Amino acid sequence: MLNFTFHNPTRILFGEGQIAEIAQEIPAGARVLITYGGGSVVKTGTLDEVKRALKDFTVLEFAGIEPNPTYETLMKAVELARSERVDFLLAVGGGSVIDGTKFIAAAVPFTGEPWDILAKQAPISEALPFGSVLTLPATGSEMNGGSVVTRKATQDKLFFVNPLVYPRFSVLDPTKTYTLPPRQVANGVVDAFTHIAEQYLTYPADAKVQDRFAEGLLLTLIEEGPKALAEPENYAVRANLMWTATLALNGLIGAGAPQDWATHMLGHEITALHGLDHAQTLAIVLPAMLQVRREEKRAKLLQYAERVWGLREGDEEARIDGAIAQTRDFFESLQVPTHLSSYGIGAEAIAPLLAKLEAHGMTALGEHQDVGLERSRAVYALAV
Amino acid sequence: MLNFTFHNPTRILFGEGQIAEIAQEIPAGARVLITYGGGSVVKTGTLDEVKRALKDFTVLEFAGIEPNPTYETLMKAVELARSERVDFLLAVGGGSVIDGTKFIAAAVPFTGEPWDILAKQAPISEALPFGSVLTLPATGSEMNGGSVVTRKATQDKLFFVNPLVYPRFSVLDPTKTYTLPPRQVANGVVDAFTHIAEQYLTYPADAKVQDRFAEGLLLTLIEEGPKALAEPENYAVRANLMWTATLALNGLIGAGAPQDWATHMLGHEITALHGLDHAQTLAIVLPAMLQVRREEKRAKLLQYAERVWGLREGDEEARIDGAIAQTRDFFESLQVPTHLSSYGIGAEAIAPLLAKLEAHGMTALGEHQDVGLERSRAVYALAV
Repeated sequence: MLNFTFHNPTRILFGEGQIAEIAQEIPAGARVLITYGGGSVVKTGTLDEVKRALKDFTVLEFAGIEPNPTYETLMKAVELARSERVDFLLAVGGGSVIDGTKFIAAAVPFTGEPWDILAKQAPISEALPFGSVLTLPATGSEMNGGSVVTRKATQDKLFFVNPLVYPRFSVLDPTKTYTLPPRQVANGVVDAFTHIAEQYLTYPADAKVQDRFAEGLLLTLIEEGPKALAEPENYAVRANLMWTATLALNGLIGAGAPQDWATHMLGHEITALHGLDHAQTLAIVLPAMLQVRREEKRAKLLQYAERVWGLREGDEEARIDGAIAQTRDFFESLQVPTHLSSYGIGAEAIAPLLAKLEAHGMTALGEHQDVGLERSRAVYALAV
Repeated sequence: MLNFTFHNPTRILFGEGQIAEIAQEIPAGARVLITYGGGSVVKTGTLDEVKRALKDFTVLEFAGIEPNPTYETLMKAVELARSERVDFLLAVGGGSVIDGTKFIAAAVPFTGEPWDILAKQAPISEALPFGSVLTLPATGSEMNGGSVVTRKATQDKLFFVNPLVYPRFSVLDPTKTYTLPPRQVANGVVDAFTHIAEQYLTYPADAKVQDRFAEGLLLTLIEEGPKALAEPENYAVRANLMWTATLALNGLIGAGAPQDWATHMLGHEITALHGLDHAQTLAIVLPAMLQVRREEKRAKLLQYAERVWGLREGDEEARIDGAIAQTRDFFESLQVPTHLSSYGIGAEAIAPLLAKLEAHGMTALGEHQDVGLERSRAVYALAV
């Protein structure tokens, strides 16, 4: 097991009806800015439920944070929060809204150029406190300190990670996910699955607990993901999916274990250049990535084959082939296609994607930092 | 899944050499009281290592916190901390030292009778901040807000739980466990195993993630426990055991799941009246408890039989019998006897134990609050 520091101060309020408890988690007298996305939280009544819970606070709203939140939009919220002297943010939505809110929280008190927080990993010394009400289990942003933001003008999709931007609290009410479109449900399962794979499918590091936890989360996604699509209002299914997606990226399974993240980096460029959903890019890249790097990942792929997919027969190559095929089939079964060509993207897209990777310094990716542009090319080529 | 709140603010510093980092976790200028037990941390050099890390602080020491820490001893530390105006505590040792330090932390600023914190669950509004350097993986006290204290004069073993007594940080350095006596290693495995059982072997509650995590921890204990006895200086084994014992009782696997804890309550009385090690009492009580309550726990016992012990053959009764027998055999294989008679205690002990349970109000135990004195009598009788 590698040495690690684990510290996750986010308070989780889990279960139906927990939105009513948020007033107790926000300092009395705070001026609260509610941030949200395209309006589904208006339609479903979640925004009203939040506002009722905050009836004793001064509440402002900022709507319109997009999927793959943009710097351009978020800076408008930063200006609003500054001019209105907001002292608490409340993200109501999915990972994009929470990621965007983290950037707002860091940018409001930042004295330099806020873009540098992303582009130059400029250090931040404070952030506005914030909470979240999660409506879409997927990214894990509700219980971690990471944020991904896209600059529309340049199509750069960049991230920052900071302990100051853990949510103070996050409400996880599974009933809020009942009305999600199937595409978002499926995307969430793929996203969480890939988060786990990035922290699990590397090389053995004697991190038995982390491995068992990762396998438990994967098994839960495989069992519950299809059920969530078939029975949208099954509370137990939604609850298990929601908690799984949170635990997939709250630092627990990655603490003390090697981590990869090359799939995410290659996926980010696809979203930036072609606008695909984040999870769609992961579904495209992950199976190809595992195939291209099967030698270095051999031991963990065999463990994955056995413990997650029950593949104990045949030789090693057959079991690895089987595990990769099962992964692909699982994503496809959720109606998330796993080839670029399924989205109308051909081999001509590879060169611009590699150019973006190079421009972002993504030339030594993976747990061994040995995924350079040639191997990334091989992954993209296999993913067409 | 049941509704839950999960909040665990303890920072974990895991791995060899992490003691050197503790100075950064303690407020500059703090007067630090180091608390420890019978002196093994002196012999092993761990105390010196801690003092070297704290060379820039004013450091005081309080030695002599016993296994099953006593109120009488702890109150001496409270007086010392008050008179010396200590503002940070650092527990160096196992669960007893950390539990004891939690009581000291709560009692120092407490204006009433400190015993009431335990006996009357008197509310506390503040506690001294403290950290821990763990030397014995077992109780999970290093990452939770619970504490068990015994009053020597009356042989009462009582507990309190409070969010104010989570350690600010805990150092988990697996090399500090190399020199533990085999009995303490084995006890630690039994203790962690039983903590998991108390949160897992209840009834199905659609808490799939928690179940998978619990099973992962149990499997790790079963794999690594015997190895730790056979190869005391195997770092990977020690690391997995240490992290497993912490995760067994940090609130994670119990969040949203029903919990039992009857085994602990019956065990506490055995320690109080007969002085057995805490883990010895758990090894005695747990198999008998599962046997007496096998009907209400049927579904989870069958799941446990299959996923933890690989028992898939035979009818349900045979699989449950097998799972209980495997549990008992596992404890015995660690040289922790599972019958009262192995410790020279006979059936005559049962009436006084029941009287203590009654005196402590422990008459409606378990996940259904239906373990009264008659069922406790049956458990003790089966455990003879």
